[in-house]
Amino acid sequence: MQLVTTVQDLQALADRERAAGRRIALVPTMGALHAGHLSLVREARRRADRVWVSVFVNPAQFDDPADLDRYPRTLEADLEACRRAGVDAVFQPEVGELYPAGCQTWVEVAGLSRPLCGATRPGHFRGVTTVVSKLLLAAKPHVAVFGEKDFQQLVLIRRMVRDLGFDVEIVGSPIVREPDGLALSSRNARLDPEARRQARVLVAALDAAGRAAAAGERRGAALLHVARNEIAKAPRARIDYVELRDPDSLEPTPAELHGPALLALAVCFDPLEGVAGASVRLIDNRLLRPED
Amino acid sequence: MQLVTTVQDLQALADRERAAGRRIALVPTMGALHAGHLSLVREARRRADRVWVSVFVNPAQFDDPADLDRYPRTLEADLEACRRAGVDAVFQPEVGELYPAGCQTWVEVAGLSRPLCGATRPGHFRGVTTVVSKLLLAAKPHVAVFGEKDFQQLVLIRRMVRDLGFDVEIVGSPIVREPDGLALSSRNARLDPEARRQARVLVAALDAAGRAAAAGERRGAALLHVARNEIAKAPRARIDYVELRDPDSLEPTPAELHGPALLALAVCFDPLEGVAGASVRLIDNRLLRPED
Repeated sequence: MQLVTTVQDLQALADRERAAGRRIALVPTMGALHAGHLSLVREARRRADRVWVSVFVNPAQFDDPADLDRYPRTLEADLEACRRAGVDAVFQPEVGELYPAGCQTWVEVAGLSRPLCGATRPGHFRGVTTVVSKLLLAAKPHVAVFGEKDFQQLVLIRRMVRDLGFDVEIVGSPIVREPDGLALSSRNARLDPEARRQARVLVAALDAAGRAAAAGERRGAALLHVARNEIAKAPRARIDYVELRDPDSLEPTPAELHGPALLALAVCFDPLEGVAGASVRLIDNRLLRPED
Repeated sequence: MQLVTTVQDLQALADRERAAGRRIALVPTMGALHAGHLSLVREARRRADRVWVSVFVNPAQFDDPADLDRYPRTLEADLEACRRAGVDAVFQPEVGELYPAGCQTWVEVAGLSRPLCGATRPGHFRGVTTVVSKLLLAAKPHVAVFGEKDFQQLVLIRRMVRDLGFDVEIVGSPIVREPDGLALSSRNARLDPEARRQARVLVAALDAAGRAAAAGERRGAALLHVARNEIAKAPRARIDYVELRDPDSLEPTPAELHGPALLALAVCFDPLEGVAGASVRLIDNRLLRPED
């Protein structure tokens, strides 16, 4: 497995692989790799001859500097996980390599970056679309794989790629979950044991709304009520948002659902009173397909 | 000479040329080709095996819709000029090809797009950097050639390419001038005969300031005074800006110049009283190198 640290080296490697007729798949990550990331690697493997993983904690997408400091960094373990997963190259640049001194260029998807996570995390998605642009220009992949847990991010990246005309296929890969249903996230490790137990209300809310939709409930307000009721069962869960949105435009859905609708949740768990620490914000989502 | 109208076809052609080991040079234009553009084509020819010209009047860079309507469109003559100049392919997409329905992604160079032309043309440079990103992603060139007349544009594109990591070399090509010194521009044709005669004060201002700098004048205010005096000789010339700026950062220069400084001008010629028509805004610039 190759370790590449500069854009120039990665572009040269991409040119060589492409000249040899090989397909490249990129899996962009911020490290702290877990089974969710490894499922992206397997998806990438099915679609390309070379699988590259980037490991870069992107400062531009953190709206809160303390959150950036707290973000887990486990490079040695990440490299070992990539090696075992048969990754061909890891791209692990320094911050100054992707954000050179005087850097002032931003890639922004205007409308789609506003609702949901965009509303509570100003600048977050501008940071995401900017760094993904840089990673795509550095790796020149034929395909790039992203997790569906960050659904809004995936929608934004698809739109950016289509709007700017990046010659790359964007693939979404299903959410991987813990045995109790909690979506895998590097943030889960920051939950205290009680919050961790309560955190399963996110998937419980999705399950309950999914069952209601499958049973014929098409009223958006009723589905949201079902989801909120489940989350309310966790005393420490503080809702950031629970929303139904069109899965492509992220526009609010009509009062009565006609087609597939994204049920998206963001829930915070604050530290116990008197305990030092920061809130942990978890997201999850499911595509509801109400019966016609 | 090939005529290509879709991004997909151009990317496929780029992949074939690259696989065959050939270097591609792109010359982005808005058509209405004149000798200035053809000098860019010659520069491109010196640097690559394939020379591609894009002809696209980019709506996103026009801050004034009337200006967009008035912009000359001379496609047949442009194609003929490209053929004679030995261009290998012309990329001439429809607007919807580069700006698909629902398009909402912007590439913006924050600081450099604010002064000079950015101050009087809001959104102009965001439109430029966005469309140049799209053209670079479509043509995948090894080198792209831009005229130095649009100096701020060139500085912005260099910064964007460096910041995002586009794998392309950006080349600036010297200003081409009429016999009386007026910089070539598709806008010159819109000057009435009197305004056309008076328009040579732009180059006269650059010449005068250049002579003063060569003679040892290092005070910025004095150099600007010399330039403004020349422009004042044309009764119909209305100054938009006359400024000295650092040629890389576009920051204002110190009171006493230490190194090379960009002298940049924008001057408007309004229609004669009682004559219908719109103002014509001309720009020009020169790098001053005061003696040390």
